Amino acid sequence: MNERILDLKQQLKQHNIQGMIVSNPVNIKYLTSIEAEGILLVNSSENLFLTDSRYVEGVNNLLTIEDEIVVYDFKDLSEIDYENFFPGSESVGFEEDYVVYSEYKRLLQKYKVNFVETDGIIENQRVIKDDEEIKNISKACSITDECFEYILKYIKIGMTEKEIAEEMRSFMIKAGADDLSFDTIVASGKNSSIPHAVPTNKKIVGDEVLLLDFGCKYKGYCSDCTRTIYIGKAPQEFKDNYKFVLSEQEQLLKSLRDGVNLKTEIADRVYSYQKNHYSIFHSFGHGVGLDIHETPSLNNKKDYILKKNMVVTDEPGIYFPGKYGIRIEDTVLINNMWSDRLTKSNKNLIELEL
Amino acid sequence: MNERILDLKQQLKQHNIQGMIVSNPVNIKYLTSIEAEGILLVNSSENLFLTDSRYVEGVNNLLTIEDEIVVYDFKDLSEIDYENFFPGSESVGFEEDYVVYSEYKRLLQKYKVNFVETDGIIENQRVIKDDEEIKNISKACSITDECFEYILKYIKIGMTEKEIAEEMRSFMIKAGADDLSFDTIVASGKNSSIPHAVPTNKKIVGDEVLLLDFGCKYKGYCSDCTRTIYIGKAPQEFKDNYKFVLSEQEQLLKSLRDGVNLKTEIADRVYSYQKNHYSIFHSFGHGVGLDIHETPSLNNKKDYILKKNMVVTDEPGIYFPGKYGIRIEDTVLINNMWSDRLTKSNKNLIELEL
Repeated sequence: MNERILDLKQQLKQHNIQGMIVSNPVNIKYLTSIEAEGILLVNSSENLFLTDSRYVEGVNNLLTIEDEIVVYDFKDLSEIDYENFFPGSESVGFEEDYVVYSEYKRLLQKYKVNFVETDGIIENQRVIKDDEEIKNISKACSITDECFEYILKYIKIGMTEKEIAEEMRSFMIKAGADDLSFDTIVASGKNSSIPHAVPTNKKIVGDEVLLLDFGCKYKGYCSDCTRTIYIGKAPQEFKDNYKFVLSEQEQLLKSLRDGVNLKTEIADRVYSYQKNHYSIFHSFGHGVGLDIHETPSLNNKKDYILKKNMVVTDEPGIYFPGKYGIRIEDTVLINNMWSDRLTKSNKNLIELEL
Repeated sequence: MNERILDLKQQLKQHNIQGMIVSNPVNIKYLTSIEAEGILLVNSSENLFLTDSRYVEGVNNLLTIEDEIVVYDFKDLSEIDYENFFPGSESVGFEEDYVVYSEYKRLLQKYKVNFVETDGIIENQRVIKDDEEIKNISKACSITDECFEYILKYIKIGMTEKEIAEEMRSFMIKAGADDLSFDTIVASGKNSSIPHAVPTNKKIVGDEVLLLDFGCKYKGYCSDCTRTIYIGKAPQEFKDNYKFVLSEQEQLLKSLRDGVNLKTEIADRVYSYQKNHYSIFHSFGHGVGLDIHETPSLNNKKDYILKKNMVVTDEPGIYFPGKYGIRIEDTVLINNMWSDRLTKSNKNLIELEL
């Protein structure tokens, strides 16, 4: 049986849970590499993947005997089959943050077991990345870097934010990305002061800030990168603020390391320092993997110890509502003494003369 | 107060429900035109939109006094506020097909009311389209038509399915679409026999079927269109099958009209006829609007009467697994005596000589 499923079973056992229904497709992909629609049932003796006729053949071709996963077509299953999937199980886990209420009720009716909330168990397994995962994230990051280099040459006065976002998308897909990891943010002028800006038809006019937040997926794994540049010659005030965010981002890069406590050793310092200077709208980072936002969230809410081979973002930002915003973000790999950047694009202030 | 919210209140009253929490952003947009993150609370006396600080100003700018919607920032709300949002309400509706189980539990804790399932109420309101909605869907359809005309000239031997899909996306966005309404399907050769094929790196080699299923959004409203063409000179067998699907699609176009019962007057005939000839993997149409798949689903499962000004797809298809598939789909507007095509691309067999 594959190690990820073995780990899951081990954890369920520790929680005194005899089985689990995995519905979240990202968790199914993580545990089995299956990307078809369906659900994974894990009980004490076996693993089943229930899917529909469109996928049965493809999934069977993908799996090997070592996977120990039996594939069923929904339409071949009777009421009795469902009731027998978790024999002798007192508690069966389900993903309460993924399953909608109506589906939860259907699960109760079908399986006739006691369901307990187990969202987070697989998500916590996913936090530490193995070599293959780091390789895929690194590849997504390098496509992202190529995109930044390319787009700097492409941007012209008069282009809209939307046009630039489309060109970035097109570049990354052609460079081998499966997909974007999220909708690209291209925010110019005062739009850059909105942390989650959506590209508009506003044209690049020059003498303004341009913030680009973008990433792509490679074999399902995400990258995430933000750069803030100036179109034209940057005023001193902007330069000073840029310098501040950059030094903050580089300090974080050194602080994010194996064994560090996010709340007590990092977040409190960052937030208390920044509170005196600027408003903070968002956490200063998040886990990255098969999802663009994964565990952990980098903030001051609770104690959380970083571990080697976690992949997170390092993204402090400051925002002057109605004026401009500056955010610098890298995807980084947690190591013993510091973190290593996986996105490696230039972070020195770029003043783009067009 | 706007008519859509008044209608909703009327229906809730008929169900003896005193309020509703609307969480699905598509339903919020339909009722209020608000596109920000947040939830809409409707009670017997007022309407509230709860959102976070990023959106308060924008939403207030969008709304007028006639909307009678009061906007609150989540962070200004106390426990008591939540408990007082549904004064004297015995039952409050929530969207059981949208709200995940953990969120349902939070709602219970916060609002301390009896929640009842009301998914489908707003979805049923959305089924009949008004003039503005039909205009937006028609515009999305005309961009889709332009895309088909364009891509026929663009396709060359050696291009991959992915490349063609990307070019179609890029064309529709540049032509004014907000977004795609779903991931474009470009399926060549035997890939066309998979009803929900994902574009691959397979190259167009010629003497094969090419199936394109695509659509875009305009002001949030979707279009949906499928065309199946032949690259090269089509063999007689393919021509015959194409002719069959086309006549089936045109017959449906005439049958889909105000007052017709989908199950007894249409679906039973279609399914029984087709069962003798081919395997059917999907319904022969679905509602289209703010979502690409809306109520109704066109199948033989239950009685459903079509009404004037519904917008649905007409999409029969036949599939020869491992060989090829043929599907022809238009987005159509239900009228008194027949339905009118909103996608108007050529449906005669195209043999593309490259």
